[in-house]
Amino acid sequence: MIEESPLESVKSDIVVEFENADQAKIVYDSIILEFETAPDFRSSMTIELDDSKIMINIDAEDSTSFRASVNSAIKWINLALQINNLTI
Amino acid sequence: MIEESPLESVKSDIVVEFENADQAKIVYDSIILEFETAPDFRSSMTIELDDSKIMINIDAEDSTSFRASVNSAIKWINLALQINNLTI
Repeated sequence: MIEESPLESVKSDIVVEFENADQAKIVYDSIILEFETAPDFRSSMTIELDDSKIMINIDAEDSTSFRASVNSAIKWINLALQINNLTI
Repeated sequence: MIEESPLESVKSDIVVEFENADQAKIVYDSIILEFETAPDFRSSMTIELDDSKIMINIDAEDSTSFRASVNSAIKWINLALQINNLTI
């Protein structure tokens, strides 16, 4: 299916905006290591912190690996937010 | 959880590139109606066709509705591709 697919690539810039720069920094510091070590040969992800925003760039070869990357990224962010709520 | 979340918004531009403009147009024509009628009050999606690319813009209030929108969009595209494969 993948080799026959007429789909060439799926790319995305995701901007996650937080209430303030502190919250964004806490989440960014919590998840940066996941992004750097995630083993996926069909997609690449980069993450950047910009004030109260986290920018995630995903470049995938196919839609399945794109969905996997988006879902991983969002899960990591949610997990960081939930742990942070516990510790406030 | 949602009201307390320090997450303000999740926005994304997704670019799906196909082998050629014909394939992109077939998929675009198949899924445009889904995008126009999808009832979601926490996120909005727009779709545009540009030669061999389909651009999807998602603007969501929270990460859950963002993931739902991304997953819907990718599923519609995959479904259109699979049906098109059957009919070739």
